[in-house]
Amino acid sequence: MKLIVQKYGGSSVADAEKIINVARRAIKAKDKDNKVVVVVSAMGKTTDRLIELAHRITDKPVPREMDILLSTGELVSSTLLTMALESMGAPAVSLSGAQAGIVTDTKHRRASILRVDTKRVQHELDNGRIVIVAGFQGATGDGSDITTLGRGGSDTTAVALAAALNADSCEIYTDVEGVYTADPRVVSKARKLPEIGYEEMLEMAYYGSKVMHSRAVEVGWIHKVPILVACSFNDAPGTLIHGGASMEAKNKVTGIAHDTNVAKVTVVGIPDRPGIAAAIFEPLTDAGISVDTIVQNSSSQNLADMTFTVARSDLSEAMRLVSPVASKLGARHIVNDATLAKVSIVGTGMVNNPGYASRMFRTLADKGVNILLITTSEIRITCIISEKNVKDAVNALHQVFELEKGEL
Amino acid sequence: MKLIVQKYGGSSVADAEKIINVARRAIKAKDKDNKVVVVVSAMGKTTDRLIELAHRITDKPVPREMDILLSTGELVSSTLLTMALESMGAPAVSLSGAQAGIVTDTKHRRASILRVDTKRVQHELDNGRIVIVAGFQGATGDGSDITTLGRGGSDTTAVALAAALNADSCEIYTDVEGVYTADPRVVSKARKLPEIGYEEMLEMAYYGSKVMHSRAVEVGWIHKVPILVACSFNDAPGTLIHGGASMEAKNKVTGIAHDTNVAKVTVVGIPDRPGIAAAIFEPLTDAGISVDTIVQNSSSQNLADMTFTVARSDLSEAMRLVSPVASKLGARHIVNDATLAKVSIVGTGMVNNPGYASRMFRTLADKGVNILLITTSEIRITCIISEKNVKDAVNALHQVFELEKGEL
Repeated sequence: MKLIVQKYGGSSVADAEKIINVARRAIKAKDKDNKVVVVVSAMGKTTDRLIELAHRITDKPVPREMDILLSTGELVSSTLLTMALESMGAPAVSLSGAQAGIVTDTKHRRASILRVDTKRVQHELDNGRIVIVAGFQGATGDGSDITTLGRGGSDTTAVALAAALNADSCEIYTDVEGVYTADPRVVSKARKLPEIGYEEMLEMAYYGSKVMHSRAVEVGWIHKVPILVACSFNDAPGTLIHGGASMEAKNKVTGIAHDTNVAKVTVVGIPDRPGIAAAIFEPLTDAGISVDTIVQNSSSQNLADMTFTVARSDLSEAMRLVSPVASKLGARHIVNDATLAKVSIVGTGMVNNPGYASRMFRTLADKGVNILLITTSEIRITCIISEKNVKDAVNALHQVFELEKGEL
Repeated sequence: MKLIVQKYGGSSVADAEKIINVARRAIKAKDKDNKVVVVVSAMGKTTDRLIELAHRITDKPVPREMDILLSTGELVSSTLLTMALESMGAPAVSLSGAQAGIVTDTKHRRASILRVDTKRVQHELDNGRIVIVAGFQGATGDGSDITTLGRGGSDTTAVALAAALNADSCEIYTDVEGVYTADPRVVSKARKLPEIGYEEMLEMAYYGSKVMHSRAVEVGWIHKVPILVACSFNDAPGTLIHGGASMEAKNKVTGIAHDTNVAKVTVVGIPDRPGIAAAIFEPLTDAGISVDTIVQNSSSQNLADMTFTVARSDLSEAMRLVSPVASKLGARHIVNDATLAKVSIVGTGMVNNPGYASRMFRTLADKGVNILLITTSEIRITCIISEKNVKDAVNALHQVFELEKGEL
C-alpha cells in the first residue's frame, strides 16, 4: 500500500463544483489501494479578501492576529472538501495545520516548519480515512499560537508532510499542466518538460516560474521527495521534479524563466568604508524583505554605488527602511526603478561553458534589449532588463536555445 | 479592580466601522480601571453564509466538519476586533474558544460547556490585555476536536466565562436596548424593563423574546451572574437580569412573549398502551429536536391522539423521524400545521391567581382568536394560536394587563 500526498491550490478549490472534483480525484487515488493525504489552499481569492478585511480595520494589523485570521481560509476549504468526500461515501477527516502536527517557529506571517509530528495523521490513515490537511498554517512549538507559512506555504506543507510521512509521492495539482520551457502565455511554442532536476526547478521557480514556490522545492530536494506537478482539471501527465534528471541531463538549457515583479534601488555616492552593506541590508532582513541581486561599484573618488533588487511589492517598505540609513552613511541620494524584469536561462553545465552566457547577451543585444544587471549561478544566468522588453527577450531566447524541439 | 465580561452579537460587529465602535466601548470599560473580557459572535450573516456554502457541497454535512467550518466565523471577528484595539493603542489578544478554556462535550453542532479552564484568560488579563474570546465555540475535553454550542452559543460563552472568572458583571450588547414588556415591533406601547428576574427572563426568552437565549439565562441563574442586556450602538440604560427582581416584584404580569417559529404535529389514532410517548419522542431527542408543548388525548375507543409542537425549522426532520414510528405503533395517520405561533404572559405569582388565565383567555376570545393548545408554568401561561392572529393577540394582552404603565 502506497502513501500519496496531494496538494490542491486555491484555483482548484475555488467553488463547490471544483471541491467536488477534487474529492473525486482523491477517491480515485484511494481506490487504487493508496493511503491518501490531501493538502488544500484557501478557496480562490479568500486570502486576499481576508487581508483586505484586516486593512479596513487598521493599516498595521498585529501579525499574531493576522495569522489566526488567514488560517481560517484553509479551515473552510479543508472542511468543505471533507464534507464532499463523506457525502460521496469516502471516510475522511480534516485537520488544521496544528492538528496535523505542523510545528513552526514563532515568526508570524512567514513561519518556518521546524518539524512535523505525524502521529495523528498516521492514526487517521490507519483508520482508513482520507486525511485533509489545511495548508499554509501550523502552530508554535508549545501549541499556543497559530502561525502561517507565508509565500508558497501550502506547497511547503505538502512536501514537508510527504517527507515526514515518508510518502511514495507528492503531487502538486494546480491550474497549469506542469513546468514549461518558458511561460506558455508569453512563448507560444513553450514545451512541457516531462521531468526536471530539483536544482533547475529551484532556479526556474525562484526566477519567475509561478508553477511552484522555490521554498517547497528546496524542502523536496533536502528530503529527496519526488514531486509531480500536474493539472487538477485534467489527467494530462505533468512534470516530475526529482533528483535523477539533472544528473543525467545533457549540458543544455532546460528553460527560460522570467519575473516582472522586480524593482531596483540604487544608493548613490556612499563614502566607501567597511560595513556599508551590513548597514544597508540588516534592516531589510529584519523586516523580512528578500534582497535579490546586489551590485556594489566603487568609484575612483572613494565613493561607492550600491544597487539591489527587491520584489516590486516590497519597494516602498525598502525605500522607507533604507533612506535613513543611506543619509546616515553620507550617501548623496537614493533612486529606484519599479519597471524592471528578470529574464533567466536555466540548465545544467552552464558554468563550464561560457558559450551560453555570450549567446544570451548577443540575443538580447540583437533584439535591442538593454541589460541593467547580470547575475549567475552554476545553472542559471539572469539579466535584469526593462519590463517592456520581456516578451521579446523570452521568445528570442526560447528560439535561440531551441527549446521548442524537445529531447532528442 | 473589577472584572467585566462583555458580549457583542453579530449585528454589533457586522462591518469594520462597527468593530471599531466595539473596540472604543471596550477601551472605555478598561479606562474605568476594569479588567475586560470581550466575547464576540461572527460578523453579520457569516454563519448563515458558511452553512449555505456547506449545503452547496452536500445535503448532509458531517457535524464535526461543520463545527470547524462555523468556528471560523468567530475567529475572523475576534482577530479583527483585536487588531482594532491594538491599532488604538490598547494591548489585546484574541483567543479561540479552545484557547479560552471552553471545554465541551462531544455533541457537535449543539455542544454543552462542561467546564471553563480560565488559566490562559487570567494570565492575559494579568498582563494588562483586553482578552477577546471567539464565542459560540469550544473544544472537546482532550482538545482534539472543535465544537460549536448551537443556538445562543455566544451568549452562553459570555455568561459561562463570567461565572468561571467570578466576574463582577456580564454585559450582553445587542441591537435592542433591553428587555421589553412585549416585542416593540409588534406593540408600539411596549416599555423597556429596568430589571427582570432570571425565571421571568427565562420564560420570556424561551417563549419568543429574541433578546437573549434562554440557555445563557439558565447558566446565569445557576451561577448567580447578574446579566445586563443593553444596546451596543448607544449608552441607554439596559435591563438587568438578576436574582432579586422576581422575589421583590408584586404579583403581576411582567411581559408578553410571542414566537412565530412554531409547528404542530399530531399523530392520530394510536392504540393506547404504555410506551407510546417514549417511542415517539426518543428519536426526536436523539436527533436533538426540542419538543415543546405535548398533549395526549385518550379517546373512548382506546385510541389516543398525540400532539406536540416543534420549531418550524425542525418540522420536516420531525415528520421524517416520527412517521415510521407512528405507523409501527398502528397510528391512523399523522398531520402537521406550520402556521402557528405561541403567545405567553409571563410574571410572578400567576400560579396562585387563576384570574390571570381567565383574563388571558377572555381577551383572546373577544378578539376572535382561537386557542389550539394551552400550557402553563408557575410564572407563565402560553396559548398556541394561528400565526395570523399574533399581532392582535399581543397588543390586546399588553393593554389588558396595563403593561404600558410601568412601575407604580
